Amino acid sequence: MKIQIINGVNLNLLGTREPKIYGNSSFESYLKNLKNEYSTIILNYYQSNLEGEIINKIHKVGFSYDGIILNAGAYTHTSIAIHDAIKAIKIPVVEIHMSNIHKRESFRHKSFIASACMGTIVGFGMDSYRLAVEAIKKLRTNS
Amino acid sequence: MKIQIINGVNLNLLGTREPKIYGNSSFESYLKNLKNEYSTIILNYYQSNLEGEIINKIHKVGFSYDGIILNAGAYTHTSIAIHDAIKAIKIPVVEIHMSNIHKRESFRHKSFIASACMGTIVGFGMDSYRLAVEAIKKLRTNS
Amino acid sequence: MKIQIINGVNLNLLGTREPKIYGNSSFESYLKNLKNEYSTIILNYYQSNLEGEIINKIHKVGFSYDGIILNAGAYTHTSIAIHDAIKAIKIPVVEIHMSNIHKRESFRHKSFIASACMGTIVGFGMDSYRLAVEAIKKLRTNS
Amino acid sequence: MKIQIINGVNLNLLGTREPKIYGNSSFESYLKNLKNEYSTIILNYYQSNLEGEIINKIHKVGFSYDGIILNAGAYTHTSIAIHDAIKAIKIPVVEIHMSNIHKRESFRHKSFIASACMGTIVGFGMDSYRLAVEAIKKLRTNS
Amino acid sequence: MKIQIINGVNLNLLGTREPKIYGNSSFESYLKNLKNEYSTIILNYYQSNLEGEIINKIHKVGFSYDGIILNAGAYTHTSIAIHDAIKAIKIPVVEIHMSNIHKRESFRHKSFIASACMGTIVGFGMDSYRLAVEAIKKLRTNS
Amino acid sequence: MKIQIINGVNLNLLGTREPKIYGNSSFESYLKNLKNEYSTIILNYYQSNLEGEIINKIHKVGFSYDGIILNAGAYTHTSIAIHDAIKAIKIPVVEIHMSNIHKRESFRHKSFIASACMGTIVGFGMDSYRLAVEAIKKLRTNS
Amino acid sequence: MKIQIINGVNLNLLGTREPKIYGNSSFESYLKNLKNEYSTIILNYYQSNLEGEIINKIHKVGFSYDGIILNAGAYTHTSIAIHDAIKAIKIPVVEIHMSNIHKRESFRHKSFIASACMGTIVGFGMDSYRLAVEAIKKLRTNS
Amino acid sequence: MKIQIINGVNLNLLGTREPKIYGNSSFESYLKNLKNEYSTIILNYYQSNLEGEIINKIHKVGFSYDGIILNAGAYTHTSIAIHDAIKAIKIPVVEIHMSNIHKRESFRHKSFIASACMGTIVGFGMDSYRLAVEAIKKLRTNS
Amino acid sequence: MKIQIINGVNLNLLGTREPKIYGNSSFESYLKNLKNEYSTIILNYYQSNLEGEIINKIHKVGFSYDGIILNAGAYTHTSIAIHDAIKAIKIPVVEIHMSNIHKRESFRHKSFIASACMGTIVGFGMDSYRLAVEAIKKLRTNS
Amino acid sequence: MKIQIINGVNLNLLGTREPKIYGNSSFESYLKNLKNEYSTIILNYYQSNLEGEIINKIHKVGFSYDGIILNAGAYTHTSIAIHDAIKAIKIPVVEIHMSNIHKRESFRHKSFIASACMGTIVGFGMDSYRLAVEAIKKLRTNS
Amino acid sequence: MKIQIINGVNLNLLGTREPKIYGNSSFESYLKNLKNEYSTIILNYYQSNLEGEIINKIHKVGFSYDGIILNAGAYTHTSIAIHDAIKAIKIPVVEIHMSNIHKRESFRHKSFIASACMGTIVGFGMDSYRLAVEAIKKLRTNS
Amino acid sequence: MKIQIINGVNLNLLGTREPKIYGNSSFESYLKNLKNEYSTIILNYYQSNLEGEIINKIHKVGFSYDGIILNAGAYTHTSIAIHDAIKAIKIPVVEIHMSNIHKRESFRHKSFIASACMGTIVGFGMDSYRLAVEAIKKLRTNS
Repeated sequence: MKIQIINGVNLNLLGTREPKIYGNSSFESYLKNLKNEYSTIILNYYQSNLEGEIINKIHKVGFSYDGIILNAGAYTHTSIAIHDAIKAIKIPVVEIHMSNIHKRESFRHKSFIASACMGTIVGFGMDSYRLAVEAIKKLRTNS
Repeated sequence: MKIQIINGVNLNLLGTREPKIYGNSSFESYLKNLKNEYSTIILNYYQSNLEGEIINKIHKVGFSYDGIILNAGAYTHTSIAIHDAIKAIKIPVVEIHMSNIHKRESFRHKSFIASACMGTIVGFGMDSYRLAVEAIKKLRTNS
Repeated sequence: MKIQIINGVNLNLLGTREPKIYGNSSFESYLKNLKNEYSTIILNYYQSNLEGEIINKIHKVGFSYDGIILNAGAYTHTSIAIHDAIKAIKIPVVEIHMSNIHKRESFRHKSFIASACMGTIVGFGMDSYRLAVEAIKKLRTNS
Repeated sequence: MKIQIINGVNLNLLGTREPKIYGNSSFESYLKNLKNEYSTIILNYYQSNLEGEIINKIHKVGFSYDGIILNAGAYTHTSIAIHDAIKAIKIPVVEIHMSNIHKRESFRHKSFIASACMGTIVGFGMDSYRLAVEAIKKLRTNS
Repeated sequence: MKIQIINGVNLNLLGTREPKIYGNSSFESYLKNLKNEYSTIILNYYQSNLEGEIINKIHKVGFSYDGIILNAGAYTHTSIAIHDAIKAIKIPVVEIHMSNIHKRESFRHKSFIASACMGTIVGFGMDSYRLAVEAIKKLRTNS
Repeated sequence: MKIQIINGVNLNLLGTREPKIYGNSSFESYLKNLKNEYSTIILNYYQSNLEGEIINKIHKVGFSYDGIILNAGAYTHTSIAIHDAIKAIKIPVVEIHMSNIHKRESFRHKSFIASACMGTIVGFGMDSYRLAVEAIKKLRTNS
Repeated sequence: MKIQIINGVNLNLLGTREPKIYGNSSFESYLKNLKNEYSTIILNYYQSNLEGEIINKIHKVGFSYDGIILNAGAYTHTSIAIHDAIKAIKIPVVEIHMSNIHKRESFRHKSFIASACMGTIVGFGMDSYRLAVEAIKKLRTNS
Repeated sequence: MKIQIINGVNLNLLGTREPKIYGNSSFESYLKNLKNEYSTIILNYYQSNLEGEIINKIHKVGFSYDGIILNAGAYTHTSIAIHDAIKAIKIPVVEIHMSNIHKRESFRHKSFIASACMGTIVGFGMDSYRLAVEAIKKLRTNS
Repeated sequence: MKIQIINGVNLNLLGTREPKIYGNSSFESYLKNLKNEYSTIILNYYQSNLEGEIINKIHKVGFSYDGIILNAGAYTHTSIAIHDAIKAIKIPVVEIHMSNIHKRESFRHKSFIASACMGTIVGFGMDSYRLAVEAIKKLRTNS
Repeated sequence: MKIQIINGVNLNLLGTREPKIYGNSSFESYLKNLKNEYSTIILNYYQSNLEGEIINKIHKVGFSYDGIILNAGAYTHTSIAIHDAIKAIKIPVVEIHMSNIHKRESFRHKSFIASACMGTIVGFGMDSYRLAVEAIKKLRTNS
Repeated sequence: MKIQIINGVNLNLLGTREPKIYGNSSFESYLKNLKNEYSTIILNYYQSNLEGEIINKIHKVGFSYDGIILNAGAYTHTSIAIHDAIKAIKIPVVEIHMSNIHKRESFRHKSFIASACMGTIVGFGMDSYRLAVEAIKKLRTNS
Repeated sequence: MKIQIINGVNLNLLGTREPKIYGNSSFESYLKNLKNEYSTIILNYYQSNLEGEIINKIHKVGFSYDGIILNAGAYTHTSIAIHDAIKAIKIPVVEIHMSNIHKRESFRHKSFIASACMGTIVGFGMDSYRLAVEAIKKLRTNS
């Protein structure tokens, strides 16, 4: 089973950026633990600050992997293009957010991506990624 | 560890109601499997079609359990009262939905409950409940 | 043929409440006449001020009766939960209102229930109930 | 007793136009049956695709007939002029629609005509016309 | 000097229609007095309930008369087509209303015609027409 | 003189719930003092988390008491049904809130109840109840 | 007959301010001509840039004069206070504007004053004042 | 204890202005009674129709009095400047209205002042002022 | 191949009306050239200023021609009735506009017709008609 | 004559992506045919999923080519930056869409690009590109 | 070179008012330093809490000074009258704010003044005034 | 002292693009002069048309420079991602615009970036950059 994790804009700064909201450990150290916990699943990781490169990656893995875990960052709230990219591929995408976006500024309440995804997981900090792995694993095992 | 599952309005008809959206197995049979999978956790279940009774239940367990898994059904989109009930208690609440509400009518896109909850899990069918158990379990284990 | 009439919130006060809008005879006396006029149809009557109890009643009769005549009162304008209850059952529901809600405050112009019902009859005073009986009778006779 | 039925724009195509929504029998054949059923009532029929001609007809019968049954078609949603014509006359007008306009595009949810009419009947197919005859008959008999 | 008075939809019923708002004398008797008062000005009068015929009349006189006095009735609030007709001609148009439209329903507060006209006179009953004659007379005398 | 105090949803938790906003003494202890201060007035107290039960209580006392003091909690912002219940009865209702709702989330700024009440008192903590007693007392003494 | 002309904010600059919109002659010279034309009417003139002083003047003359001609300038679009002042007095007020406000920025399309006035005259340059004199003269002569 | 009562725009006309809404006794006679009732409190009174002068008064007393009772009249609905003045001072301000503003035009439903005040009292006629005195008295006695 | 060109309201004035926007040659001379260029296609032309007559023409040709080229003028932005007429027929309709409506007033940005048509061509002056002929020709040749 | 065709985001997947909406042949095979049909015109092709690279290309060709045919995909609905790029260059741009965007989700109805372009062609599938070539060819031949 | 600094409503309290937002030094002491730094420029200072007096001052200096630095305080967000005053004069006006208004309540995000000014400087505390002096100095030196 | 100037989308065309709005000298020649004027400050310059690359640059300098001067061009109005990037770094950012965006299309009035910046300078042409240098210099000197 192969899952692509895609982190979008500004998420390269995890651990540095607004620690009150996002915590202060880097994603890389978290990912290492996650890979250990799910050692039978290939978990590939990609991060970009460019909307178009995120779309390129979605296109690239979207016909062969088992699922995508997508934290699009702020593009979540503005990108119809990512919405379309998800609709254009064949595999399920799980939208995740670490913080509870509904507790923050109103411009973060709208997700253009949610309606194209299989489902959404919001507000569990880094554990949101693990829950998404669980969701895809269950889906692929059952189908 | 004790977790209260609360199903809100119309969810007593699961398995009967709009099977294209909600599937056709009842919640009771699903719950039995879930209890088996998490045999060390006490999973109590409550369903009501009355907004006020849901609130009564939230009050009752909200100071002693480890978490609440709440699928409020249509009250999700209209109930500030449930929002306030969640804010008034001490334990984390995970909002879940079986269907992807962002793919449905626009009046289902707004959740009054989300901003009071710890997090939200949307769109994974019955598996949304299991993911919520995972989330609470992780949270309580870490803290 | 069995038809359930459900009167929602504040309609227990018919005859007492705002007589300029709703007239000053009680629903019970009207119902007696209606039963006489349609003696071959079983017309059951239920009234509640609790949204959840109205939903319980809809669930209860919604798989065996020939139709429901629903005057939800003010819940008409706020209840997605009743909308869902109607969608979840198998029999036709006719939404009725005694007063012409379009001549009143703007918050009464929106019905969350209408789009789930078979049809709507508005503005004919108590005669709205009789017209709804006529509508269901025709429908069941033709089908 | 004399009742004027007025069908508005595009309703000359009934039986031809979008049969999934409007059915496939013409209004003329339906009208013949209706006249038979209510043989003591004079049921005059008029159809026009011109907003102004519909208004002319409302003016013409609006001081001498017992009632008007008006299906204004799409002008329902845009015509303040028809609203004013109804307010300017002396007899009751019943607004009817064959399809349930609340299940269709959002621009069909608003009726500019409803607040000028006595009442509204929506969603019963051709039977909406018969229910309107019933409503006017009752009203004129009682008053 | 030649001025065209155009009365729009439902204004044929002046004297009959909603007398509390529009008074109870007919426009014809008023017009006779107005012609006497301004005997050196040719005052032509036209009324139609059809939006398109009002536009035809605007086109016809719009390149040769000295001005148009336009009471478009309810089309005031919905007709971009009349707006365009006024913009397409060469002579000044004065929009008038007998009642104070700003005291009435909110859908009467918007005029699509005003921004295409030279000016607007609202709320002086039948005297609105005389004031419009005065306005055009002054304009044509000065220029 | 008989006054009914009605506390709505979540107000059973006063003293426990969000103490920064609502303070940390229970309503029962406050009520005891209030009764002492106004010993000639019968002050009955009722609390419910169910919208429909609040309406039932309003109906029950609404034709015989001297006034109602209503803190509807979150139902304030969503309940047209309570609005209608107040309009349906004969005695004055004073809407009160302990916190200043205009300083809080925007969804708390709108009261559906205010326009049906005699008046509103907002923001004085528990003293809001006493001020309402004062208001009803004055009203009943003067009339 | 006594009429008070009130010019509001920035109208002291007439003749200087944006001549493309307002022309380049001062109001004083225009007023002299107007007084000559209506020599039997006392035309008092007042100008202020302070909203409150305009209101003071409305109060002062509003119970004894025959009418007020009010060009409130930009306060037209923001002042509920002037609306209330007009409603509080006994004499008719005619709102006028020199430019056609409907051709300008959208924030000038709304008048808070119009619904409190007898009528409105818009777009005839300085002649708007004369037309308002005509309107009040007719009204006072007829009544 | 010193309390400043500030009446805003048009409130000099109390007793004269729209008696159906505001009653027909002047504020001065009411104030005399109020001073008698609360003889131990210094009740200073100020009225102005100028927004800026109201602000000047708020500044002047806002650091030395025990409280302000503010009925800003129509400025309530438009003045962010008064909001800021209240926030800039040190003493509590109670916003009051004699009429129930929620029963009137929609532009009176919004208060820009409420969120800066301690609390709001609406709809009790002149008694609103007394209730505000009660509120400040309690507050200052307790603190 | 038979194509109906329908020009709507005010388009009879082409060449006369606002030449900066619409150019100054008449449609008739353009049409002559177009017929020469597509000599194998029958190009019928109809113009009316009446919304209802445009609908009548759509009905008439809508079951036998190969396509309709429709420039509805200002009715584009207000007519749900034309939308319905297009949906009721069997042949493709191409909506065209000579000017780029997106560069003009915001009330011209919305087309009620576009969603019922096959496609839309906007902004190419008279050449918009030729491009529509090309589009229909290709469609009918391919199918 | 040199024309640049620019395809925006997700259009690299044509033939693969949502075939019900976009058909199932690739753009490359269509382009080959188009080049054959217009052999005297140089048709350069560029596709990118990056908004900024699309802008770079517009800058590069925008001062020397004869025209641009731009299908910006989802950026159409969100990119003010592309709007500005088009305004900054010297050559005409034709906006095209294969599907009829007005029949799809409401967030696709708004084009930020349209008001900067010469014209727009929507809904003719791949033929939209050919019609755009026709439009530019005519424009450049005439000018 | 002569520059007029105008401080609007509540800015007389600088140093006293909400020190977390506005700092705690008075404007007068700041102004002394500013005059020293720009000793060749005459810097006149005016403060008023009355909208109309601010306008009077703008009129007075607006035809002879080299520029105005305007901090209108809360009138920024509501005053079309000040907008018009700025448009009516001949010299450049620089709008300034000490705090970053975009970080505060949403009703402070809109400036009615900005579109009439030459430019805007926001968020640099007292230094905003100096930057405005720099801007006017540069402008007047260059032109 | 090190300051990074970042110019966003389409600003590479300065001097070429819409000279009426942006002037016709290139940014490079302006920058040369600016460096001369502030010879003790290191002024680095970066321009990109890609939103993601602008963010990369903000990340790169945002923990070591003394400040950023950011003219994001059209991304100002749409990019929550740049807002987040600014919030994620440690140094002050000054948003600048050459043109007065409040005088232009309404979609340019909203800045998503402003609320994350220290302050904003709008409308002074190229001099906006110099004023931003002044602002950062003062800030860093004082702190």
